[in-house]
Amino acid sequence: MKKKTTIKDIAEALGLTPSGVSKALNDHPRISDKTKADVKKMAKKLNYQPNHLATALRKGKSNLVGVIIPRNNSNFFSSVVENIEGVLNEKGYNVIISQSNESHKKECDCIDALLSAQVDGIIASMANETTNLKFYEKIKEKGTPLVLFDRGENDLNVDYICIDDYNSSHKVVEHLVNQGCERIAHIAGSSNIRIYKEREIGYRDALEKYNLPIEDELIVESTLRLEDGRRIMQELLELNERPDAVYASGDYAALGALQVLQENNIKVPEEIALIGFSNEPFTSFVSPSISTVNQHSEEMGKLAAETFLNRLENSSEDVSLNKITLNTELIIRDSSNKTNS
Amino acid sequence: MKKKTTIKDIAEALGLTPSGVSKALNDHPRISDKTKADVKKMAKKLNYQPNHLATALRKGKSNLVGVIIPRNNSNFFSSVVENIEGVLNEKGYNVIISQSNESHKKECDCIDALLSAQVDGIIASMANETTNLKFYEKIKEKGTPLVLFDRGENDLNVDYICIDDYNSSHKVVEHLVNQGCERIAHIAGSSNIRIYKEREIGYRDALEKYNLPIEDELIVESTLRLEDGRRIMQELLELNERPDAVYASGDYAALGALQVLQENNIKVPEEIALIGFSNEPFTSFVSPSISTVNQHSEEMGKLAAETFLNRLENSSEDVSLNKITLNTELIIRDSSNKTNS
Repeated sequence: MKKKTTIKDIAEALGLTPSGVSKALNDHPRISDKTKADVKKMAKKLNYQPNHLATALRKGKSNLVGVIIPRNNSNFFSSVVENIEGVLNEKGYNVIISQSNESHKKECDCIDALLSAQVDGIIASMANETTNLKFYEKIKEKGTPLVLFDRGENDLNVDYICIDDYNSSHKVVEHLVNQGCERIAHIAGSSNIRIYKEREIGYRDALEKYNLPIEDELIVESTLRLEDGRRIMQELLELNERPDAVYASGDYAALGALQVLQENNIKVPEEIALIGFSNEPFTSFVSPSISTVNQHSEEMGKLAAETFLNRLENSSEDVSLNKITLNTELIIRDSSNKTNS
Repeated sequence: MKKKTTIKDIAEALGLTPSGVSKALNDHPRISDKTKADVKKMAKKLNYQPNHLATALRKGKSNLVGVIIPRNNSNFFSSVVENIEGVLNEKGYNVIISQSNESHKKECDCIDALLSAQVDGIIASMANETTNLKFYEKIKEKGTPLVLFDRGENDLNVDYICIDDYNSSHKVVEHLVNQGCERIAHIAGSSNIRIYKEREIGYRDALEKYNLPIEDELIVESTLRLEDGRRIMQELLELNERPDAVYASGDYAALGALQVLQENNIKVPEEIALIGFSNEPFTSFVSPSISTVNQHSEEMGKLAAETFLNRLENSSEDVSLNKITLNTELIIRDSSNKTNS
């Protein structure tokens, strides 16, 4: 390890005091322009690297923003993060990402890691497992700005950007009813998570609206992975009375269901129609293409970043809380479109 | 923002000196067990949060490891990161991720961001654009351990985990020749990047070995996105003499090529066989499934983390450099298997 150039080295080289050098480097008004120029030239010559961490400690600002995502293998989350970065980079902030892998314990570590990296604030989406909000409360208690997106909790009283999950589900069921489906199954997400709960309620209310039966055997909760979709589809096929449509609260689960349907030579959508959620890119290029719900990840990322900047620049509690709910778009593709097939 | 509890507050509450409290919190041997217990109890009661950043500055250790990836919408990179995290979390390190989006400028910002977060070291894979290594040299000059994976540069003289790109390409071409293909096109990656260059050389050498012509019009360089694959496939179809096989250096480009082939009603693999690279999950569930190369992302992630820990624990330059090259596995699926079709 090379010895690092310090402020003292610059001071000695120029015959100044260390405190004078420090002031010159920080553009202190008491230092002449000539001295500032000399000091900066010498700092460059000696390859002086300011200790950003010390600067952050002194100024209380690191220009780093932490983003917590539940997992990084989903196009939805990578697109949100990309758009958060787009807005924040332009304002001179760098983004560091920490992922919980849907584990609450890991999420607590993420929060600690980001706080210890002295981020100026955190933008987060919660892990599937999270029910205890203590660690999120800790961020608030430290006075670190916090914005939640997609998976959040109103009880935290922080800015929150989400989609209209309830109405999205309503639209899905309505479309399936219009296609003539009468026995619609739901592969649901964890009911711990507000967004999945609301999707399920939207599904139930829409069935009720159209006088269709709500049957417990047709509603199965899972973590919505491809394997979950496979397993649950298999179970649904073994029922005495099969469903004629399956609405999965996530695209990977829908894909798993599609695989099982094809392995069993069941025609999609004619025998069983299928809809997923979140418009992962693969939904458009599998065959048949999978109908799904577009969550507008670009807009969600941009709004999360803008809300965050607004909170950061007005750190007092004067700024009223933002809860922004985005509309979604039902994308009808081959897996649910009986009129074309 | 609540006022934070300081060491002084604890000292006042217990009638001790701040320096005594600090020593007690850090388990200094001169402090009695009774005092240590009292101080820790009071620290808890007053909700004292040690300033990790100050601790990091003092101890020179943050227990944070930075990982730089070119993009986060690839299963390969998310799987490597997941495995890096698996190893490092077990050793008490938290991982923060910074993504370059294939931009060199952004990559420099990532490095600055991670260094200013005072990470204990960096594990990185380079952006497509990167040719200037100055910022990576900066990490080394600061004495911060650096390990590269997948996309790296031997000139940096750091630990490096990669796959055998040259032989992977060789195997791909050999398989296509065995299927009877004679006019094999290559959708290549940027020749700035060592791994893509080596894949191209492997392709050329294999053609030569089997006495097949190497034709410039059949080798097209790109950034390997889905759109690139579409555009290049379109161009290849417009040639006077079409290829009878296409080998793309990335799965997304292979998928784009497949879409264009299907839109033009060209039978895959009968008329044109197709192979991608890196075993993204979608390659197995599109129809026809796409043959590809498995890069063993799990092993790469684990080895990168273990190499990193070894470097961290032996920070002197005594430990000789590790360059680990992993073998790959050719996965033959429907898009190139003529014997089954």
